[in-house]
Amino acid sequence: MTRPRPGTPPDDGDTVAAVGEFGVVDRVLARAGTAAAALVGPGDDAAVVRAPDARVVASTDVLVEGRHFRRDWSSAEDVGHKAAAANLADVAAMGAVPTALLVGLACPADTPLAWLEGVAVGMAAECAPHGAAVVGGDTVASAPDSSAVVLSVTVLGDLQGRTPVTRDGARPGDVVAVAGRLGWSACGWAVLRRGFTSPAAAVAAHRRPAPPYAAGPAAADAGATAMCDVSDGLLADAGHIAAASGAVLHLDRGTLASFVDPAGPLAQVAAALGGDPLAWVLTGGEDHAILATFPAAADLPAGFTRIGVVEDGVPGVMVDGVAAADVAEGLGESAGHVHF
Amino acid sequence: MTRPRPGTPPDDGDTVAAVGEFGVVDRVLARAGTAAAALVGPGDDAAVVRAPDARVVASTDVLVEGRHFRRDWSSAEDVGHKAAAANLADVAAMGAVPTALLVGLACPADTPLAWLEGVAVGMAAECAPHGAAVVGGDTVASAPDSSAVVLSVTVLGDLQGRTPVTRDGARPGDVVAVAGRLGWSACGWAVLRRGFTSPAAAVAAHRRPAPPYAAGPAAADAGATAMCDVSDGLLADAGHIAAASGAVLHLDRGTLASFVDPAGPLAQVAAALGGDPLAWVLTGGEDHAILATFPAAADLPAGFTRIGVVEDGVPGVMVDGVAAADVAEGLGESAGHVHF
Repeated sequence: MTRPRPGTPPDDGDTVAAVGEFGVVDRVLARAGTAAAALVGPGDDAAVVRAPDARVVASTDVLVEGRHFRRDWSSAEDVGHKAAAANLADVAAMGAVPTALLVGLACPADTPLAWLEGVAVGMAAECAPHGAAVVGGDTVASAPDSSAVVLSVTVLGDLQGRTPVTRDGARPGDVVAVAGRLGWSACGWAVLRRGFTSPAAAVAAHRRPAPPYAAGPAAADAGATAMCDVSDGLLADAGHIAAASGAVLHLDRGTLASFVDPAGPLAQVAAALGGDPLAWVLTGGEDHAILATFPAAADLPAGFTRIGVVEDGVPGVMVDGVAAADVAEGLGESAGHVHF
Repeated sequence: MTRPRPGTPPDDGDTVAAVGEFGVVDRVLARAGTAAAALVGPGDDAAVVRAPDARVVASTDVLVEGRHFRRDWSSAEDVGHKAAAANLADVAAMGAVPTALLVGLACPADTPLAWLEGVAVGMAAECAPHGAAVVGGDTVASAPDSSAVVLSVTVLGDLQGRTPVTRDGARPGDVVAVAGRLGWSACGWAVLRRGFTSPAAAVAAHRRPAPPYAAGPAAADAGATAMCDVSDGLLADAGHIAAASGAVLHLDRGTLASFVDPAGPLAQVAAALGGDPLAWVLTGGEDHAILATFPAAADLPAGFTRIGVVEDGVPGVMVDGVAAADVAEGLGESAGHVHF
C-alpha cells in the first residue's frame, strides 16, 4: 500500500516512519546483494535456498543497540559487517560455508533510512565473498518505550559434504589450536570506551571483526574433533568445548602471550592504560577466531597455531596448570563475556 | 560459566538476571521439544537440520511486546503459539512443511524465567504436530531503555519435492480461493482492546491463531499458481498477489460476507459495537488463512472456498467491481495492517 513506485529516487532525509514498512524493505533490499544459492529471494512469504548436501546449517545472533553496538562508535556499515561476521563465523565453526541470511529488525520510527541502508551495505559486503546475501526478513517498529535498534540475524550454511564439527568431540591427546585474532576487539572497545579512536587497527577490529572464515572448513577437512568460534573469549569458549567433551583443555601461557605483538596495538594500548594485554587475549570476545581440537597426528591447516593439549580430568580449562577462573581473576577480568 | 549444574531444580521466582544467559537457554530449551529433522540441535555454534529435497524454505517474523502482543492480554503460552503460527503459516504458504525454528530473543533482565518457559511451551506445542521444534537461537538483554521483549523467529521448511508457490503466478482466468478463518483475530483484538474477554472464541483466535497449515501443501499439489498467507488482511494480501502477478483479483462480496456466521462471534461482536463484521473479514490480519489462485479447471483442495477470479487489467483488487481502498474506506478500515 505504501510501496513506492520502482525507481523512486532515495531521499536521504527519509525515516522509517516516512516510507513505511514496505518502503524500508524495498530500499534496504536494493543494497542487499544476491545470494547465489537463492531460488526464491526476498519479497515472498518465505525464501527458498539451495541446500546441496541435503542438510542446512543454521544459527541466529541478536545485536541490540546500546549493548552490542553504539551508533556513535560504529558506522551503519560497521554494524552490518559486525552482525554478518558473528553469524558467518558460527557457520564456519561447524565446518560449513554460508549461503543466505535472514534479518529480523525492530527499529524506532525515526530511524534514518540511510542508516538502515548502510547496515545493508555492510552486511552485503561481509557476505559477498562467500556468495551469500540477505534473502528475507521482517521489519517492525521497536517497542513503544525504546529508541534502540534490535537486529536478529539468522544465517544458513552448507556443509559441502563435510561432517559437522561440534563442540563435544575433543579427546585426551588431541592438540588445541586457534586461527585468527585474539583480544583485538576487546582492546578496541577499551579504547573507544575511554573516548579515543586510535590505534586505528584496534578500533577497526572492534568495529569490523575479521574472522578467519576459511579456517573452519579447513579444520573440518583436516580432521578437527571439536570446534567453535571465539565469541565469548578464549577461556570461556575453550570451557564450552571442555564441558561438552568432558575433558580438560590445557593451554600454554607462553604461546598465548606470543599473540601480543610487542610492536602492535594490544601492547601499545595496554602500556597506555596500565594493564596486561594477555587479559584481552584470554577473555576478549567478538574477534571470532576459530578454536579447534585435532588428533595429535593431524597436520594443522594454514593459519592455526597450537596453543595446548586435551587431557583427561574434571572438565575445564587450565593455563600453565592454573584454573581459568583464577587466571582471569589474576588478570583482572572475568573469564568470559557476561551478557546480563 | 553461569551454567547451572544439570538437575538444578527450577525456582519459579527466577528472573533472566538471576540465572544468566546460559541458565535461560538451558531452562527454555528443556521445554522446546525435539525437531525430527535436527542432526545437531541447540547448544553448538549452529544447528544442522535435514533438508531432504536439497532446498530449504526460510522465513523470519518479529514480534515486539506492546505492538504484536501484550503480556496482560496473552499468556506466555499464547505468545509462543502466536509467534510459531505466524512462521509456520509462511512455510505452508510456499507449499512446504516446517522442520525447525530458531529464536532471537531480547528481553529485560527482570523477565520472569517462567514467562520465557511458557513461550517455549507454546512454541513447542504449535510445532509438535509437524515434527518441528526450536533448534537454536540467541538470548540477549533488551536495550537499556526498554522493558519490552522482542522475539525474532526464523522457520525452516522442506518442500518435499514440490515447486514453491510464489506470489507472482496468478493468471487471467484463474480462480481465487481461501482456506481458513478471516477476521477472527481482528475481532478478538477489538474485544480485548475494549477490556472484554468474551466471546471466548474471538479472543482465543486473537491469542492463538489456527492457520490451516495443511492447505498450503495441498494447494501446491492441486496446482496453485500463486499463494500467500493472510497476515496483513485479505485485501492487502490479495493486493500483494495482484501486484506481483500483474493482474486484477476480482473478489465476490456476497461470498466473503458468508464468512460471517450470523450466529458466530464476528456477528455478535459487530452487533454489540455497531460495526460491519465484513470489515474484519476483508482487512483483519493475523488469522493466517491461506489465499491462493488456481487454474479454472483445478479441483480446489478440501477447505478452500472460491472467492473470486483473476482478470487482466491494472494490477489491484476489486470487490464487486469496487477498488479495495474504497471498499475498505466504506467499511471504516484501512486496507491492511499498518506497521508504522
